[in-house]
Amino acid sequence: MKRSICVICRWLFVLHLCALVAFAQEQQFANLGDFKLENGGVIRNCRIGYRTFGTLNSDKSNVVVVPTWAGGTTEQLKSNFGPGRLIDSTTYYVVAIDALSNGVSSSPSNSRLQPRMRFPEFSLRDTVATQHALLTRVLNIQHVKAVVGISMGGMQTFQWLASYPDFMEKAIPIVGSPRLAPYDLMLWQAQIDALMRDRDWKGGNYSANPARALDFAFGELLLTTPPDYNRRKTREQVFADLAKAQSDAHRFDANDKIRQVQAMMKLDIPLESAAKTVKAKVLVVVAKYDHVVTPGPATEFAKLLGADLLVLDSDCGHLATSCESQRLNEAVAQFLK
Amino acid sequence: MKRSICVICRWLFVLHLCALVAFAQEQQFANLGDFKLENGGVIRNCRIGYRTFGTLNSDKSNVVVVPTWAGGTTEQLKSNFGPGRLIDSTTYYVVAIDALSNGVSSSPSNSRLQPRMRFPEFSLRDTVATQHALLTRVLNIQHVKAVVGISMGGMQTFQWLASYPDFMEKAIPIVGSPRLAPYDLMLWQAQIDALMRDRDWKGGNYSANPARALDFAFGELLLTTPPDYNRRKTREQVFADLAKAQSDAHRFDANDKIRQVQAMMKLDIPLESAAKTVKAKVLVVVAKYDHVVTPGPATEFAKLLGADLLVLDSDCGHLATSCESQRLNEAVAQFLK
Repeated sequence: MKRSICVICRWLFVLHLCALVAFAQEQQFANLGDFKLENGGVIRNCRIGYRTFGTLNSDKSNVVVVPTWAGGTTEQLKSNFGPGRLIDSTTYYVVAIDALSNGVSSSPSNSRLQPRMRFPEFSLRDTVATQHALLTRVLNIQHVKAVVGISMGGMQTFQWLASYPDFMEKAIPIVGSPRLAPYDLMLWQAQIDALMRDRDWKGGNYSANPARALDFAFGELLLTTPPDYNRRKTREQVFADLAKAQSDAHRFDANDKIRQVQAMMKLDIPLESAAKTVKAKVLVVVAKYDHVVTPGPATEFAKLLGADLLVLDSDCGHLATSCESQRLNEAVAQFLK
Repeated sequence: MKRSICVICRWLFVLHLCALVAFAQEQQFANLGDFKLENGGVIRNCRIGYRTFGTLNSDKSNVVVVPTWAGGTTEQLKSNFGPGRLIDSTTYYVVAIDALSNGVSSSPSNSRLQPRMRFPEFSLRDTVATQHALLTRVLNIQHVKAVVGISMGGMQTFQWLASYPDFMEKAIPIVGSPRLAPYDLMLWQAQIDALMRDRDWKGGNYSANPARALDFAFGELLLTTPPDYNRRKTREQVFADLAKAQSDAHRFDANDKIRQVQAMMKLDIPLESAAKTVKAKVLVVVAKYDHVVTPGPATEFAKLLGADLLVLDSDCGHLATSCESQRLNEAVAQFLK
């Protein structure tokens, strides 16, 4: 009898732990009130989404902050956390944070007071400021082990280094950029034009989502390289993919995308002066054949910082983080140790 | 006195020759009447533009046919002809031909009976058929030394080989394709979508040319590679270039572009069976990092033909024909000998 109770106890304990872990991974929100932007604007009732993975140490020394990529959510980040993944959440306490205008945190698509294009333009400095407020004011975390981000998450990681150089011990910007190269500016401007010149755009007050297939096409053309794309696709699949993108249009919000793209385009960290203030150890990861975040500015900043530099060189382009995930994960694990 | 007359005679003779050459290089037109298309349609009052360079041999054995690239004209081809250029017009008699829907030959922008989107869809088989008619029926040339074309001109060269395998001694398709790869289909479909979903499109009956800056952006993003683009441009120049493209919009005709793009997308030469019928000696030229006409299908067809293959490998992408013009011109001259 005693033994069976003990077994039941153990099960209850395990279930309790599982529930705790599962709950932590659930979407949570912090209310930051009216959040003042550097351009003088205000995000009314600013709400920041986040999820945590793993367990916070008693001395809070194992926090790793992970901001989302463009159009991405913390839900989509989930698969990056766990043993052997990008961040081992059995060692680190991961705080994944939804970037402004991703449809989860305050965004044109979910703001009642500032809907659609009435949602103010903001910068990645503002985005990172909301994350700093979440950590310091809501979660009471004043210093972190590391900031790690992929793509626009990598851009935010660079901005974290520039805005709060004392806040982190280490930083790993992955296929990100401290300042968009000419090619990157051209590709984002083209995507904004594609949305805003679309017949269904209507100043952002659309009922049918504008230019969804075209927006999807930009991703297909630029996220990887032509040889990789041609290996994976048939001629017939191109048109099936485009039709599917159009039929999935309801999942896409053009206003949200535009505000994030504008924030990326404004990113312009003064490399030389910023490099002098950085105190963290930095591992910069770039992809040689990246056609979305071209690797020039990140590589230049890595040199100015004397940072470690990992160059992914598969022909998967921006998606090299997936194609070379093992190599990437090992380098990140080693660097965080 | 006798001597001075002789000098005058010589001068007059030279002037006469210059006038003849200059006249030949001027835009000329052939009227083909109502031209029947393979889809059952008809181009009414079909007019084909062309220019000639050099002198036709008495036995007509030195004719080189050069069709235009997408959106290009025979005027733009001019600089390719002469000693040390792509084709030496002091040796060969070049007949450069304006492709259908380039704004010079019959096109949506210049057809009175079938203006704008009332201009019928056609294929590159039709385009090549108009050129065959021009040569055989108007210029009375029944066989040529070579067909040489760049980009969509290269596609037409492949189509010449498939449609009229007895017509040429040699053929040099340069950064062309016998069948568009998946990546190429995606990029052209995106460009058609960008034009036809534009707020100014109006079913082709526009007064303001639609999506010109966006259309220009596609070229900037795909004609070369990101490293080459970033080397040549500054961040500021990106926006200056886009503004200039928009202000030059009147030079661009969306209807003309759409009909040419549709023809390219329809191109689908059955490689194995076509390879068996080809009689010409073929030099296939591809660019390794070409992001507009990806080199897979041309390379495959070259292997099936047992053709010579020249791979341009600079990071200028589709523009490698300019960056590596010396290497290209020497290879073409050698092959034509």
